[in-house]
Amino acid sequence: MEAKANGIKVEEDRRPAIPGPTNPMVTPLLTDLYQFTMAYAYWRAGKHNERAVLVRFPLPVNSSLFCVCPCACNSALGRFDLYFRRNPFGGEYTIFAGLEECIRLIANFKFTEEEIAFVKASLSPTCEDGFFDYLRGIDCSDVEVYSISEGSVVFPKVPLMRVEGPVAVVQLLETPFVNLINYPSLVATNAARHRFVAGKSKLLLEFGLRRAQGPDGGIGASKYCYMGGFDATSNVAAGRLFGIPLRGTHSHAFVSSFMSPDEIIEKSLNTSDGSSMCEDFVSLVQTWLSKIKYSSLLRGIFGETNQSELAAFTSYALAFPSNFLALVDTYDVMRSGIPNFCAVALALNDLGYKAAGIRLDSGDLAYLSCETRKFFCSIEKEFGVPGFGKMGITASNDLNEETLDALNKQGHEVDAFGIGTYLVTCYAQAALGCVFKLVEINNQPRIKLSEDVSKVSIPCKKRSYRLYGKEGFPLVDIMTGENEPPPKEGERILCRHPFNESKRAYVVPQRVEELLKCFWPGSPDETREELPPLKEIRDRCIKQLELMRPDHMRRLNPTPYKVSVSAKLYDFIHFLWLNEAPVGELQ
Amino acid sequence: MEAKANGIKVEEDRRPAIPGPTNPMVTPLLTDLYQFTMAYAYWRAGKHNERAVLVRFPLPVNSSLFCVCPCACNSALGRFDLYFRRNPFGGEYTIFAGLEECIRLIANFKFTEEEIAFVKASLSPTCEDGFFDYLRGIDCSDVEVYSISEGSVVFPKVPLMRVEGPVAVVQLLETPFVNLINYPSLVATNAARHRFVAGKSKLLLEFGLRRAQGPDGGIGASKYCYMGGFDATSNVAAGRLFGIPLRGTHSHAFVSSFMSPDEIIEKSLNTSDGSSMCEDFVSLVQTWLSKIKYSSLLRGIFGETNQSELAAFTSYALAFPSNFLALVDTYDVMRSGIPNFCAVALALNDLGYKAAGIRLDSGDLAYLSCETRKFFCSIEKEFGVPGFGKMGITASNDLNEETLDALNKQGHEVDAFGIGTYLVTCYAQAALGCVFKLVEINNQPRIKLSEDVSKVSIPCKKRSYRLYGKEGFPLVDIMTGENEPPPKEGERILCRHPFNESKRAYVVPQRVEELLKCFWPGSPDETREELPPLKEIRDRCIKQLELMRPDHMRRLNPTPYKVSVSAKLYDFIHFLWLNEAPVGELQ
Repeated sequence: MEAKANGIKVEEDRRPAIPGPTNPMVTPLLTDLYQFTMAYAYWRAGKHNERAVLVRFPLPVNSSLFCVCPCACNSALGRFDLYFRRNPFGGEYTIFAGLEECIRLIANFKFTEEEIAFVKASLSPTCEDGFFDYLRGIDCSDVEVYSISEGSVVFPKVPLMRVEGPVAVVQLLETPFVNLINYPSLVATNAARHRFVAGKSKLLLEFGLRRAQGPDGGIGASKYCYMGGFDATSNVAAGRLFGIPLRGTHSHAFVSSFMSPDEIIEKSLNTSDGSSMCEDFVSLVQTWLSKIKYSSLLRGIFGETNQSELAAFTSYALAFPSNFLALVDTYDVMRSGIPNFCAVALALNDLGYKAAGIRLDSGDLAYLSCETRKFFCSIEKEFGVPGFGKMGITASNDLNEETLDALNKQGHEVDAFGIGTYLVTCYAQAALGCVFKLVEINNQPRIKLSEDVSKVSIPCKKRSYRLYGKEGFPLVDIMTGENEPPPKEGERILCRHPFNESKRAYVVPQRVEELLKCFWPGSPDETREELPPLKEIRDRCIKQLELMRPDHMRRLNPTPYKVSVSAKLYDFIHFLWLNEAPVGELQ
Repeated sequence: MEAKANGIKVEEDRRPAIPGPTNPMVTPLLTDLYQFTMAYAYWRAGKHNERAVLVRFPLPVNSSLFCVCPCACNSALGRFDLYFRRNPFGGEYTIFAGLEECIRLIANFKFTEEEIAFVKASLSPTCEDGFFDYLRGIDCSDVEVYSISEGSVVFPKVPLMRVEGPVAVVQLLETPFVNLINYPSLVATNAARHRFVAGKSKLLLEFGLRRAQGPDGGIGASKYCYMGGFDATSNVAAGRLFGIPLRGTHSHAFVSSFMSPDEIIEKSLNTSDGSSMCEDFVSLVQTWLSKIKYSSLLRGIFGETNQSELAAFTSYALAFPSNFLALVDTYDVMRSGIPNFCAVALALNDLGYKAAGIRLDSGDLAYLSCETRKFFCSIEKEFGVPGFGKMGITASNDLNEETLDALNKQGHEVDAFGIGTYLVTCYAQAALGCVFKLVEINNQPRIKLSEDVSKVSIPCKKRSYRLYGKEGFPLVDIMTGENEPPPKEGERILCRHPFNESKRAYVVPQRVEELLKCFWPGSPDETREELPPLKEIRDRCIKQLELMRPDHMRRLNPTPYKVSVSAKLYDFIHFLWLNEAPVGELQ
């Protein structure tokens, strides 16, 4: 909204305050103790109040892109990259998720007096009081967060986020940021992988709350599985928090809580148009059961069905006549569950209602779904009920990527999959290894060395770009120094593997996308990217996944997506590496 | 407290109200949608207001122990068992955890108007308004919870909890209860297994917050790893919530945030007794470094150490002179980290401080810890610093049961292990499969059948006992019907495998422990077990683990602990099974 007052254009603050983290347990104390001990050591060393860089690191002569910040900042400025080193689940892609919760945390980052008292009690009694006054004053107004958009397809080594600011403050954010990104990205990726195997046409339902790692493991799973391409959840709290569609019917316990249809007292049911009433729906169901039993197409398939199950189905249909979906495997799918379901569905059909379908929760799902489909088609044919053959079949019971793949290979008639344990706990790989590494301090590039080359960090404040090829597929991500000219469409650029000198390739991008955007400018006056609604993030995610070259996406031996650095950044990484690594002395 | 008024003893209510769940996101909505659809169907069928059992299930003539409740209850009474089917991690035991959070949930179980409005919007518009009035009135005052004590060693099939009450209400509790038990029990078991491999004498630190599955995955991990035998956590929020000891020092980023000792401005440090002051601690450190370098025992082991690291260690020691613990692997452990650490530790020693030790976070931990120990011993010898050789060595970096076992086999000098990812995400098996099965409705026993025998539920309201042998070890758990006489010490009892008729054994218990105790009597006037503090639960857990026969505990091919039923219960299970299973018709 813009308001004009006295001919002067006044810009009103359009943005509502960013709410706190979804889980109220996400506070400034949700971090590792060493972030506080380090904060104290920084404070004690005066790094929180350092006005300039004291010691200049020798920079290579041609490294003008890595200039040393000339501004006299009044605090040691740390720049950290948040990234991961390997894609999960043996795949070659990852979905980036969790950004919004990070922004919610920093937008509301402030210690309470109780929290400060607890930190004080947890640190050494020799710590000076001034530090606790310093903590009291801390917020994230000096912190800047550049990030890839949530829901993007991302790759190892490329920073998902760059977090800059007073080094002591940014260190405090390390643990919660990594926590808030790791699991969301992992489970969103897992959801995307399940969607990939199940195919676009299937309905995917997340049923994992009871097996998730804690309450917000469950709530997070529901949110990020939806983001990664699931259609709905069983988790009511997540539905309420995030507007995710909800699904659910009944359990085995509901079935076995009934004894026989005789115990149903309220037996009447209005027709769907309300024009008349069936006085005894229970009898109508029983009439249909006997018709099915002795029908020419189905004769001999089943004998006596389980009466407790029949009672439960009838009762459930009386409660939800417009939305009747029954769990059919409490006793025996083909000899009890399916005939009982069909009897109830046909009785509902008489009154103008269309049943929604069945759920299978055990046994050979491929076989049972095909047998069930045949049974439904026989009912359609025998009793002339149009569409009965297309009745929905939902399958659940310990499904995962492998079992979905196996079902596809066997052939099945399942329309919807309910997936729990393996999806939400990321059973195939229960952790993503995001790290948060210092890449510059006071504009001095820093590197973390390791005997394991994959653990060496890529130093410097960087920019990252995704380069797209002629066919519209992303070809390569490239990181450059902050001040290098960006890659241009149609212009050839050399992309180098950051650590392997022989791996390099020229690329002529057809399209260049800068990856890091400012989501928290450190000042309320500066522009920042909006935090889009979940549905929009989900759409981005699905779109980005569709844009990927198929060989990166396949389950078996996918092609690694290339991640590279510019020639200048390559040279600088290796210059710094040699400078920092100790030289041995041979005796 | 007892107060006496007019000579009459008045018992005051001694118990404070039970606080709500630790995570405020645990509300009555944290459940699956189908619990609400079922609740509606129960309500619609009048089961919430049923005064007696309508249809009597034919009971075997000799089944007097399974009597039908004669009281005219005004609600369908459901009894559910919460149990798991297989021990996790290929082991033969599990730690039961999460009970307190379940009791906190039911003690405060009440729908808000917003929650009811959301449920209404989520169900079919045909649902009658009366149901939402019913929800409005629901609390858990009619619910009873019998449970094994938290922190106990438990086994498959034996109920961890029995939850009784109006069937619609108890169904609503299924999902949150299973969620609140599954992960806590899984991660506590994982912690106990890590403790078993590490040995009693090692300090075990939980460092998993950043890799945990969500924020309270992290907070829960800290709590339940402590319960399972860990000593401390890095998670400050968990330390505050549960009083768990906190540990932590500094990270690689702290090391690389320094350039050189020249940048340290505040160089003075008081002696530990405050009697005098060292004006230039930085120079003292450098003097020591050069002494070590050219000492006769250590000459030639290292050349120039990394100056950024030396600056970081010096600065950290200035901040925490009494508690100096340094991460020594940012550049090179033996050629930089250890010599730098020793220089700082010796300088501190001059001023009367005792350094705490080092942490290794990469490389060959067995080899590096042994080399480090040798270096420390050489320092002790060369410079006559008593105890320097015993300096603490902490190891971290992707540790798990297997790597701890491998370290033991190689021989190592590590005193403390910091364990994160594999511990808190339960990487080796990311889910425990607790289920919640209806065992009686209106005092009628119910069974859930399955083609997979391990999935058949054990019906009836039961009692469970742990029988101990002569040597004090638990021998077998046995479930009996509610009204059977309990096993007696010194009296022979037949223990039968619940599903395998050939597996049975006579046992003469030396001690009999009843497992299920009342933690929520459904009435504030009746006695209930106290919820003990975390430390007490941890002690129980450690004590119970020590009581187990060693062959049940070993990592490779452990002996399964026996779980059995009484002869009467065995007969009844199989009678019910035959009654419920459909009989096919051969054509």
